[in-house]
Amino acid sequence: MSKTMKGLVWYGPNDLRYEDWPIPEVGPDDALIKVAYSGICGSEMSIVHGTNTHGAKAPKILGHEFAGTIAELGKNVRDYKVGDRVTAHPHAACGGCYFCQRGQEGFCQNAFNFITAKDSGAFCEYTLVRAKNLYRIPDAMSMKTASLIEPISIAVHAFSLINMQPGDSVLIQGGGTIGLSCLLIAKACGAGQIILSEPMTSRFELAKKFGADIVLNPLTDSLEDAARSVCKYGIDLNIEAAGNPKTCEAAIPLTKSGGTVLVVGVCPPDKLSAISFGDINKREIHIIGANWSPYSFDRTIEIMRRFDADPMITHEFKLDQFKEAFQTQEDKSAVKTTFVFE
Amino acid sequence: MSKTMKGLVWYGPNDLRYEDWPIPEVGPDDALIKVAYSGICGSEMSIVHGTNTHGAKAPKILGHEFAGTIAELGKNVRDYKVGDRVTAHPHAACGGCYFCQRGQEGFCQNAFNFITAKDSGAFCEYTLVRAKNLYRIPDAMSMKTASLIEPISIAVHAFSLINMQPGDSVLIQGGGTIGLSCLLIAKACGAGQIILSEPMTSRFELAKKFGADIVLNPLTDSLEDAARSVCKYGIDLNIEAAGNPKTCEAAIPLTKSGGTVLVVGVCPPDKLSAISFGDINKREIHIIGANWSPYSFDRTIEIMRRFDADPMITHEFKLDQFKEAFQTQEDKSAVKTTFVFE
Amino acid sequence: MSKTMKGLVWYGPNDLRYEDWPIPEVGPDDALIKVAYSGICGSEMSIVHGTNTHGAKAPKILGHEFAGTIAELGKNVRDYKVGDRVTAHPHAACGGCYFCQRGQEGFCQNAFNFITAKDSGAFCEYTLVRAKNLYRIPDAMSMKTASLIEPISIAVHAFSLINMQPGDSVLIQGGGTIGLSCLLIAKACGAGQIILSEPMTSRFELAKKFGADIVLNPLTDSLEDAARSVCKYGIDLNIEAAGNPKTCEAAIPLTKSGGTVLVVGVCPPDKLSAISFGDINKREIHIIGANWSPYSFDRTIEIMRRFDADPMITHEFKLDQFKEAFQTQEDKSAVKTTFVFE
Amino acid sequence: MSKTMKGLVWYGPNDLRYEDWPIPEVGPDDALIKVAYSGICGSEMSIVHGTNTHGAKAPKILGHEFAGTIAELGKNVRDYKVGDRVTAHPHAACGGCYFCQRGQEGFCQNAFNFITAKDSGAFCEYTLVRAKNLYRIPDAMSMKTASLIEPISIAVHAFSLINMQPGDSVLIQGGGTIGLSCLLIAKACGAGQIILSEPMTSRFELAKKFGADIVLNPLTDSLEDAARSVCKYGIDLNIEAAGNPKTCEAAIPLTKSGGTVLVVGVCPPDKLSAISFGDINKREIHIIGANWSPYSFDRTIEIMRRFDADPMITHEFKLDQFKEAFQTQEDKSAVKTTFVFE
Repeated sequence: MSKTMKGLVWYGPNDLRYEDWPIPEVGPDDALIKVAYSGICGSEMSIVHGTNTHGAKAPKILGHEFAGTIAELGKNVRDYKVGDRVTAHPHAACGGCYFCQRGQEGFCQNAFNFITAKDSGAFCEYTLVRAKNLYRIPDAMSMKTASLIEPISIAVHAFSLINMQPGDSVLIQGGGTIGLSCLLIAKACGAGQIILSEPMTSRFELAKKFGADIVLNPLTDSLEDAARSVCKYGIDLNIEAAGNPKTCEAAIPLTKSGGTVLVVGVCPPDKLSAISFGDINKREIHIIGANWSPYSFDRTIEIMRRFDADPMITHEFKLDQFKEAFQTQEDKSAVKTTFVFE
Repeated sequence: MSKTMKGLVWYGPNDLRYEDWPIPEVGPDDALIKVAYSGICGSEMSIVHGTNTHGAKAPKILGHEFAGTIAELGKNVRDYKVGDRVTAHPHAACGGCYFCQRGQEGFCQNAFNFITAKDSGAFCEYTLVRAKNLYRIPDAMSMKTASLIEPISIAVHAFSLINMQPGDSVLIQGGGTIGLSCLLIAKACGAGQIILSEPMTSRFELAKKFGADIVLNPLTDSLEDAARSVCKYGIDLNIEAAGNPKTCEAAIPLTKSGGTVLVVGVCPPDKLSAISFGDINKREIHIIGANWSPYSFDRTIEIMRRFDADPMITHEFKLDQFKEAFQTQEDKSAVKTTFVFE
Repeated sequence: MSKTMKGLVWYGPNDLRYEDWPIPEVGPDDALIKVAYSGICGSEMSIVHGTNTHGAKAPKILGHEFAGTIAELGKNVRDYKVGDRVTAHPHAACGGCYFCQRGQEGFCQNAFNFITAKDSGAFCEYTLVRAKNLYRIPDAMSMKTASLIEPISIAVHAFSLINMQPGDSVLIQGGGTIGLSCLLIAKACGAGQIILSEPMTSRFELAKKFGADIVLNPLTDSLEDAARSVCKYGIDLNIEAAGNPKTCEAAIPLTKSGGTVLVVGVCPPDKLSAISFGDINKREIHIIGANWSPYSFDRTIEIMRRFDADPMITHEFKLDQFKEAFQTQEDKSAVKTTFVFE
Repeated sequence: MSKTMKGLVWYGPNDLRYEDWPIPEVGPDDALIKVAYSGICGSEMSIVHGTNTHGAKAPKILGHEFAGTIAELGKNVRDYKVGDRVTAHPHAACGGCYFCQRGQEGFCQNAFNFITAKDSGAFCEYTLVRAKNLYRIPDAMSMKTASLIEPISIAVHAFSLINMQPGDSVLIQGGGTIGLSCLLIAKACGAGQIILSEPMTSRFELAKKFGADIVLNPLTDSLEDAARSVCKYGIDLNIEAAGNPKTCEAAIPLTKSGGTVLVVGVCPPDKLSAISFGDINKREIHIIGANWSPYSFDRTIEIMRRFDADPMITHEFKLDQFKEAFQTQEDKSAVKTTFVFE
């Protein structure tokens, strides 16, 4: 194998370059993966633009939603062989910090992952992962579909933190990748009536295809009317997937007494929302934050048998078309833009 | 309204008579319902035959899975009007005993219900219920479908006792009404691969239609092979819906470490199973009994939007065809036999 | 029995009168209770002063935290006899509304209770309750102690909504009746280190007696320093029992990743707090509102074997000393002021 | 440091030798611990006698309940220094197998631990562990007490699998280390009345000291009478800690409807119990197996502030007194026999 590959290297805000980059060296417990599909995440958009670098240090290759085949294995790795079709969880928890010792790897104090730190990213031909992070892709699942395991696992993890009951009504604010992933999981996992609220009407068709009973534009339609049409007492499960302090505020009064607000959208931490704890107390509202997806890939792969997530990938590009790819994702006409490798 | 109606009166073991019977008097908090559909439950089969009378005192009208319209209302009843399409939960918990005060109405020490005691049954033209047990049938749901709310609520309640995760594998032993109801709920609520085991091959087609990935005959096929084909470590959720001490025994070793055996089948209480608590301890198996369906009708009605349960009703009869109806149910060629009223 | 009794009648804001009042008539399902102890709750303070009437209609007798003996029983009541030592849950849920049918009596749409509506209150010699709301007082529990069952049940219910793990650190903001009840329950139910924050230093001694490891004055001491001294990652369970929008705001950043903010304090519903949903999302904070105590008296009585709650009653008065009693409670030099009857 | 130490080497059934043994070499991620206290577990009794070797391969040093000070650290280890007072979780999960990837390290397919495999044991002067398994001992906790963290963590983990409510009644069958650990945790974590059943009357005093309200001898006293004296409807939480198929059978009928049987006792896997699934179904009994203690040391250390567990250590010996030590533990006059090092 040659020692270099083509990669998309981030040199700082708005400075991405398509160039030769060393293929990572494979340590004894590692696996090198030849990337087949590699999606662009919102977190990477913010790193590229420098609005939130998530601690990433340039120069670095980004990309953490991918699928591919094993190209090379470290000498200690059992259970896998070269050529196996795999994906990998991008979070490399240390296993020994306070939170890891409690079984809460998502809060690992020492983790590095594709987004932020040492490990190589997947906007390139070969990416390196710890073998313990590998997951086999079922024969019946395409590489393209498998590149969606990571974003969908965020929704699977979020739902594992609550205990949705059969028939619970669901309102999802935000129709991007996370909102639509929550829609797929809500629909597959026993939601009753589902409302999706999203200002970009170009996403309406996809939301309906994915199972929303009501799709509305919050700029022109009344969220409250829609919620009360489902049940006059409000919504059982209210999912905030827009990452907007104002939609967070809007969620609570629309939630049924005893119901849940699930916070999966990523609001800027320094932007505040104004909420009534008197209402939270009186109506026993639950607000649950959900951020990352430890321990969830296995079940995500299983539940993905139940729906076709591929339409979420609205645009595909070659890696050297990266400018067009990022521009497409930026315009938000896209839901998920993905790089395809031959 | 005339003072008598046609009813199917149980006078003791194997003594059912189709005859005139007084229409119940409506107390101030009651509702009288003109029955449209009324299904036969396995518990009623055992009362009719005298194998397990569940405490019922003859003469009595049986029947507790029904839908109809309100014919008359007690003077205290608000929120409903004559003509409303309704069903009712058949369990009239006292609200004041030890268990009711703890929010566990299913264990009420003073309850009477259609099966066993004072309240009138639904194998007749008019049945009387407490208004607080009423549930409105949505416009889009037929009376026929609504008569299945009660049996399906048993599965909904059972699933409320566990915390099935997205993608969990499920094995259901028993393809009768309860097994198939569990299949519908498992499928609608996020199961991964589903196996249904049932010796009556006539039920296979329905099981596949309702979403089983693998349907097998335990008399000729290997349950273990099927389970291991889904995951070599076993099944996440193992549902016993056959009410057979031997299938209960078979469930535990097929369950994954940390997995759950959900016991919804009604075994004769005096028939014992031989199980290894050493295995339960070592592999942290959970065994959860689920019997009745308090607090579950509302969510059952909502989740029934997600599937068509009607094919579960394999046979329909007029009330005066009761001998043929009970014979059909007895032969088990039927899944659910239901009386239809004009 | 004479037809009138002495009672404390509320005629509107700041108009309480000690006068003769009819003894309630006992319906067939009711129990009349001769009151022995009857505590003043914060909700009653706000009704008396008219700051929040909770919907109460004057003239009316208030009081809902009490213990006494049965003086008379309705003809349908079984299981109790005149002279039995009892308390009663003050919330008379209807049993038939949307929430009651789901097993969520705390949200009953038709409930009336001692605080707000029809039922008679307990600031008088005889109070009337539905027999199904009765609970027997164990022989070993005094009447005085039993009058604390209701306020402590609020804490028991709140803890039933979370899943505190052995050793979890706890921070309680607010050292009034609810805060101290939460302290007793936290201490009895497996908390690790406990901090209580309260500006009235006169309550410090009681907080220490009830098991707080650290007691601090938030006006002069650093809440954050105390929290970090327990664990640098923050507090597992953060209980807001002050009913203050600012303490609600303060709770979230002090909570450990994956930890819980339990909201039992009653903030004015129209007062808003400014919080970061970005932080809730990133650190997966859970915020749980807890308000009322359905289904909890039985377990409250059992857990009260484990501690001596009596010191919470700091002041006792005769009913005709009501002005001094309310003044004492108003000054907040008291924790719980209680009327004692002979 | 010299290259050899004194150790207790197991050469096969009933062949333990006190002899020189190499001090383990410290790898880059390891910590070498100078042992201060090291307790004998029942699992080690069965390995020593050969009745159940748990897969251990002779020659090997056993012992996995210990506390000590760090003697040497691998070059990669941060956060600890030589001289730190520590204990370590004995289970070295792989982090990459099917179960580890799901956050279920207790079922790791590749784990080795002190009992069974590669890692060195603690019946010797120096024991080697992975640094990620280390836990710091609080200043206020003695080395002796700290050697009990591991056995008590078994109870903490078991309780984490259920959701005991405040005031729940508890029946514990078995008064050995695990039964008494469950007693300490039940008492500290909100149990109401507690019954402990144990045939060895020499353990009664300790059971009372640890908080049992009723202690009985099942060979002479009626377990059922005791259970019904607490509540006529049975016991909320029934803990099997005897590892006996017969006590497992006895637990179910004594459990309240909706209650839980927690199986922490280690029955021989091939010994069967005869139970009624009809009863489990009808009364909705939960049976929960609990075996190991992943993710639990941190909370165990915190909750141990709440009680004095030291009296559980009934006998202390020097390592060269090993014959007397094992004989003492064998006689069961002991609860916990522990080796003390200078």
